[in-house]
Amino acid sequence: MLTLYFAPETCALATHIALEEAGAAYRLERIDFATAQQRSPDYLRLNPKGRVPALVTPRGVLTETPALLAFVAQSFPAAGLAPLDDPFAFSRLQDFNSYLCSTVHVAHAHRMRGHRWVDDEAAIEAMRRKVPQAVHDAFRVVEDGMLAGPWVMGERYSIADPYLFTLARWLEKDGVDPARLPRIAEHRRRMADRPAAQRALAQEE
Amino acid sequence: MLTLYFAPETCALATHIALEEAGAAYRLERIDFATAQQRSPDYLRLNPKGRVPALVTPRGVLTETPALLAFVAQSFPAAGLAPLDDPFAFSRLQDFNSYLCSTVHVAHAHRMRGHRWVDDEAAIEAMRRKVPQAVHDAFRVVEDGMLAGPWVMGERYSIADPYLFTLARWLEKDGVDPARLPRIAEHRRRMADRPAAQRALAQEE
Repeated sequence: MLTLYFAPETCALATHIALEEAGAAYRLERIDFATAQQRSPDYLRLNPKGRVPALVTPRGVLTETPALLAFVAQSFPAAGLAPLDDPFAFSRLQDFNSYLCSTVHVAHAHRMRGHRWVDDEAAIEAMRRKVPQAVHDAFRVVEDGMLAGPWVMGERYSIADPYLFTLARWLEKDGVDPARLPRIAEHRRRMADRPAAQRALAQEE
Repeated sequence: MLTLYFAPETCALATHIALEEAGAAYRLERIDFATAQQRSPDYLRLNPKGRVPALVTPRGVLTETPALLAFVAQSFPAAGLAPLDDPFAFSRLQDFNSYLCSTVHVAHAHRMRGHRWVDDEAAIEAMRRKVPQAVHDAFRVVEDGMLAGPWVMGERYSIADPYLFTLARWLEKDGVDPARLPRIAEHRRRMADRPAAQRALAQEE
């Protein structure tokens, strides 16, 4: 049995949707950011990074979204969520997810998590001011090329799709008009129609 | 044939070492950051992100270090650079590399690449001031648990090792005394003894 530790409106949604797509047996555990539960001793024992997601498996804990997604795809091969038998295609999928993790998500994080990188309030405000541009620029490369369409990798749905969907849901709050990124907006609508995404979102409420 | 686009003192070194470990046939192409060659039209056609590394393969280009490393490990299985037949162990390796990419490297990037996230000079300076602490904190989780020892994943050397080595080489310039992270410092010495690391470093000069 797998247990996914999540908080609403976080990137944990990507793995949550992937688990639904895979038909996996899993339990959900909600972490309450309002009471800083992610910094509690109990949770830090599970995930010393003090963040979500964390996926508890019978063999140990995974805590980075690209790894969780790859684990779900590899553990439930019948779901066809990744090209597991093609090293180049699999690496291209990892390439996409790694970019979301290290560039797109990081651009977004400067709106709410500026204290990770700076102490003074004026600088945190300066970071927030640039979030709309930095987030737009990070998504621009996806819009203009990386998103093959209709799904991220082309005709075949994969673990990259719930991940892109999850981060693209933050566009408005990050100050980016989704109309500037029409292919990503269209992908978001396509994802929102999937029963797995609808079930995951309903469970997070 | 593979071609690795790199610049000295960047995270491209991780893939470069992995290619050496794998005994791969590859060509090196140096990108000159001093003349902003990474933003030249020719290079942007190859890698629209305008960064290094980029690995040109017969089937396409990969540009994110965790994906490049996984590709090298999967393309040269005889080198034994990743537990390819064990989904959990492979995901744990990806978990480690993803953390280096999205948290450790990002903490470091605030020293030289602050303009990605902020426009005004005072805020860029404020970011630089926090780099020693942010980089230390990011490595602390590695020092205290993620680094199994003697290699990252334990007894078996893997693609996580050249990646950790590459980022840990920046500690001094990031204002962190390696003596505060003795297990990582020891890992760095062990890596520096490997012929593959020595060859890659010599080729980058």
